[in-house]
Amino acid sequence: MSVPTLQWLDPPRGPAVALLDQTRLPAEEKVLICENVPELVDAIRRLVIRGAPVLGVAGAFGVALAAWRGDDVAAAARLLGEARPTAVNLAWGTRRALAAYQAALAAAPDPHDHNHDPQRLAPGAALDEARAIAAEDAAASTAMARNGLSLIPEGARVLTHCNTGALVSAGGGTAFAVIMAAHQAGRLARLWVGETRPLLQGARLTAYEAQRAGIDYAVLPDSAAAGLLASGAVDVVLTGADRIAADGSVANKVGTYSLAVLARYHDVPLVVVAPVSTIDFGTATGSEIVVEHRGAQEVTTLAGGQVIAPAGSAAYNPAFDVTPAALVSALVTERGVTQPVTAGNLLLLGAPPAQRKSALTDVSVEL
Amino acid sequence: MSVPTLQWLDPPRGPAVALLDQTRLPAEEKVLICENVPELVDAIRRLVIRGAPVLGVAGAFGVALAAWRGDDVAAAARLLGEARPTAVNLAWGTRRALAAYQAALAAAPDPHDHNHDPQRLAPGAALDEARAIAAEDAAASTAMARNGLSLIPEGARVLTHCNTGALVSAGGGTAFAVIMAAHQAGRLARLWVGETRPLLQGARLTAYEAQRAGIDYAVLPDSAAAGLLASGAVDVVLTGADRIAADGSVANKVGTYSLAVLARYHDVPLVVVAPVSTIDFGTATGSEIVVEHRGAQEVTTLAGGQVIAPAGSAAYNPAFDVTPAALVSALVTERGVTQPVTAGNLLLLGAPPAQRKSALTDVSVEL
Repeated sequence: MSVPTLQWLDPPRGPAVALLDQTRLPAEEKVLICENVPELVDAIRRLVIRGAPVLGVAGAFGVALAAWRGDDVAAAARLLGEARPTAVNLAWGTRRALAAYQAALAAAPDPHDHNHDPQRLAPGAALDEARAIAAEDAAASTAMARNGLSLIPEGARVLTHCNTGALVSAGGGTAFAVIMAAHQAGRLARLWVGETRPLLQGARLTAYEAQRAGIDYAVLPDSAAAGLLASGAVDVVLTGADRIAADGSVANKVGTYSLAVLARYHDVPLVVVAPVSTIDFGTATGSEIVVEHRGAQEVTTLAGGQVIAPAGSAAYNPAFDVTPAALVSALVTERGVTQPVTAGNLLLLGAPPAQRKSALTDVSVEL
Repeated sequence: MSVPTLQWLDPPRGPAVALLDQTRLPAEEKVLICENVPELVDAIRRLVIRGAPVLGVAGAFGVALAAWRGDDVAAAARLLGEARPTAVNLAWGTRRALAAYQAALAAAPDPHDHNHDPQRLAPGAALDEARAIAAEDAAASTAMARNGLSLIPEGARVLTHCNTGALVSAGGGTAFAVIMAAHQAGRLARLWVGETRPLLQGARLTAYEAQRAGIDYAVLPDSAAAGLLASGAVDVVLTGADRIAADGSVANKVGTYSLAVLARYHDVPLVVVAPVSTIDFGTATGSEIVVEHRGAQEVTTLAGGQVIAPAGSAAYNPAFDVTPAALVSALVTERGVTQPVTAGNLLLLGAPPAQRKSALTDVSVEL
């Protein structure tokens, strides 16, 4: 990306969080400057920035912003953490930055060093934590790309959904990072991009990223995926995840579950790519995941523009759907490839490195 | 409809075929007057008028138009029959009107009646045949509505796709005629309308018809149907058909096959509603059906308006997909309800009435 997805602005331009406004892509690359937490929360709700990993980063920078401004940091963290209900990373990143801030505040002042005033240092601690989350996210992208590449055959025709690249991450993203790795390794014959109604993140954003990368891609209506799968033109379906329950159920952009059922029916593997931070061990099963339902106008108009249904039409507009673990062929994380996706294997994935081995398959495994 | 879907205009306003321009709905009710066959062919290609049954009617009126103008009627019939490759009704209606025209031409002149000049009477014969096709279509709609109603339970929540009402028929349509009958019988609790990308016939046209009928409806992105089915909120999926092969494979608007797989996975019946004229006994199997692929701009822009993908994006844009008979729970025609949908039962359906009985199930059958 020539324009960064998210950027922290120091004084005098800030403190502020600058966001590439994804609602304007691909038509224009406009940057939105959020100078306080309510502005950032509004931007997150309006999907100016979206996608699980970068929401964790955005939440953390939001906490840092509140701290730098001298706002009520705990209240700001709460607001940020609840800006969207489904993506677990948002609350996770927010909590991490808040904990760093509170730990710094609670540290004893150093009587020999006048600069060591917890009150003055705590905002920096929150910012450092946000930057650490961003750096970890970038490193995780690189590792996911490497791990996921092992599942992509030569000459692969990959179908993806929604947008999972540099726009959703401080690095190369999740599923799209694997696609980029396959492209760079010369293994990608064709990328099929599901347009991802209602907000068209596939057509608008993934196509934008694919075009810039020189990938041979074609956009398709979401409902055309079934016929495409039946025709044998897809070797693997790759998606990201917004939240993974402890039982391996995957909440992701609406339409993912549809692809999961269709892929299984046509014997095509569905591979989910997500950092370990996406796994929410506090949510036992898929049915406990709160799915965000959004306004009718996202369906009855096109991204707030052209009207496409009669005035007053109601709409069913869940932002996500939940795919049971049994339909997920493999989960790629920064720690390796997990299959089958089971509660036990996810627990091992979250465990310390020494215990982790058995959850990760040999990366040369055939799907 | 206050504005008829299709209307024949006599001189002095005609001869012409007047079409309600469906590409402008629901924003405006604009009538397009086609004064010759190339204009009508262009309108059919641009989907000013679309939907299997009414295409048969339009093709027949097109032949009458050529005859009235004194054009080369056989050449006009050929042009019309090939305007869109998948809908079998178009070629069927065209052939019927052409046959009536040619039969009238071939009749011996009556030496005692100067008005009985085959050359003068043949255009009227083509027009009479077109009007007969329209009347049969209207009667078929009424019969399909009655037959289909038997499959709709009390308090039914029906999911439909594309547009199958008065806009596609000289009568009440196919699947939507059944929905209207259920609504009028007080059995319809909720109509779920799949928006039907890329051209949004569900959001634009079915929602328009549902709203005018006072039906409780909600529009959904096509990819949200899977989650909706999983939530148990759908009792039956009802669609039309553009062409049914002799083996029972159903070619219909892209996304129908997707719904068929998803409905079966969630144990919800898929009922196809179509007149017997939709069955193409000349096409043995689903794989022989030619599926029309349309231009990328239908996907990368919204109905020719707002641009939603980067300039130069390729698109996969089949207008139809093919659902194998095994995924179709029942076929409703004007002659009754057929299940299971098999080659043998379809043959019986096309047979004379006396032989037909065994192909039609008792209408009280439970799906």
